[in-house]
Amino acid sequence: MRIRLTIAYDGTRYHGWQVQPGKPTIQGYLEEAIEKICSLKTVVHGSGRTDAGVHATGQTAHFDAPDKTLGLPWQKALNSILPSSIRIVRAQSAPKDFHARFSALDKTYSYTLWTENNYVLPQRRNYVWKTGTLDMKAMKAALEYIPGRRDFACFMNTGTLVNSTVRNIMQAWFSQGLHPQETVIRITADGFLKQMVRNIVGTLVWAGRGRLAPEEVKHLILKKDRSLVPATAPALGLCLEQVNYPDD
Amino acid sequence: MRIRLTIAYDGTRYHGWQVQPGKPTIQGYLEEAIEKICSLKTVVHGSGRTDAGVHATGQTAHFDAPDKTLGLPWQKALNSILPSSIRIVRAQSAPKDFHARFSALDKTYSYTLWTENNYVLPQRRNYVWKTGTLDMKAMKAALEYIPGRRDFACFMNTGTLVNSTVRNIMQAWFSQGLHPQETVIRITADGFLKQMVRNIVGTLVWAGRGRLAPEEVKHLILKKDRSLVPATAPALGLCLEQVNYPDD
Repeated sequence: MRIRLTIAYDGTRYHGWQVQPGKPTIQGYLEEAIEKICSLKTVVHGSGRTDAGVHATGQTAHFDAPDKTLGLPWQKALNSILPSSIRIVRAQSAPKDFHARFSALDKTYSYTLWTENNYVLPQRRNYVWKTGTLDMKAMKAALEYIPGRRDFACFMNTGTLVNSTVRNIMQAWFSQGLHPQETVIRITADGFLKQMVRNIVGTLVWAGRGRLAPEEVKHLILKKDRSLVPATAPALGLCLEQVNYPDD
Repeated sequence: MRIRLTIAYDGTRYHGWQVQPGKPTIQGYLEEAIEKICSLKTVVHGSGRTDAGVHATGQTAHFDAPDKTLGLPWQKALNSILPSSIRIVRAQSAPKDFHARFSALDKTYSYTLWTENNYVLPQRRNYVWKTGTLDMKAMKAALEYIPGRRDFACFMNTGTLVNSTVRNIMQAWFSQGLHPQETVIRITADGFLKQMVRNIVGTLVWAGRGRLAPEEVKHLILKKDRSLVPATAPALGLCLEQVNYPDD
């Protein structure tokens, strides 16, 4: 019996999604909670990894539950065991061929900037990158070079082997955040390379600081050279918001 | 030279505003930071105490800085020393007779409820009280008995001596919170008794759960008996948002 989970987490104190021996991870806590419920070691497959400090409101995962748990209220059971920094937003049964990673059509990440110079609201300190004021016109001009099916090698940090560095960014847009001092960048793509969103955001912020002409983004992408691209934006502003599947 | 501070804090890990030996408090951290800057012990006077776990976005305080600090950028200096869970939103010079507590005209507190049954978004877990779904019509009917100049003895927890339990609540209203699952109650008054907002909220939530008829609120106030009133709402949903002064 395959179970699909929609998961929200505050990634601040975790070493990311993926299980690492002796370190607190989201996947680790989930697998431990499932083991407590059905006394069986089970692998939880996520739609993808998130790095240490990255948050989620709509991470998706699946696992196979033993038949004896038929009818078990998984959301309630898991939420009663998991720490409050990890919550099951939804638990539902899924077809046998549903795979959180391989069935995904696209994902949307948000990245939140705090664009005020003098302070960050303490209640938001773990969820925003304080950049101070930015030239939003330049940032928006720079963002226009991002969407499309492109080779995004320039935005990939090393450390993971991939067959191809081509990804399709369907949408990339700015919106207002929860507070007036917040600006949110959202990116929807069929897949993301390692730290791709954070590298795109780092580049946009350079444009917003006047250190990079917006049209330079076009050339950076064409050059496919990570070493030419500005520094990776910090993890804390990033949030995996949604994963879409064919039957949703 | 009198300095007026507007202060935001995440009260989660603090033992409230007021200095307590050996315990982390907001006032304690502020006085320590000022001492580091001007090598002088100084008392920081707040507009009022907030309890352990209570937050602020607009707490106000004042202190007297030595003349040698004339022209010092207090906001920047304090924010560079304070933990990120306490931030100076604004620092300004104030007239010699400005007093954060005694000059205050009114204060506004917000209280945030999470009115969804199955989970709290982890990013909001320290800032909301999870009540689950509530009968908003009953809550709004109950709230109508609150505003006005009244003896609010029934909403005062014991432990502080006061001359009078009469306060003037100028405004009390519901609004939408940062997330669709959040409902915010805001109360503006010329002063608040000990845990008054949390006792009002506890009472409104009982009405929202159908355990108290809205019109009972009127009688509870008239009876002036704390023991008849429902349990105090937890600290974490409460936030001191604003303190108003004559010249603002």
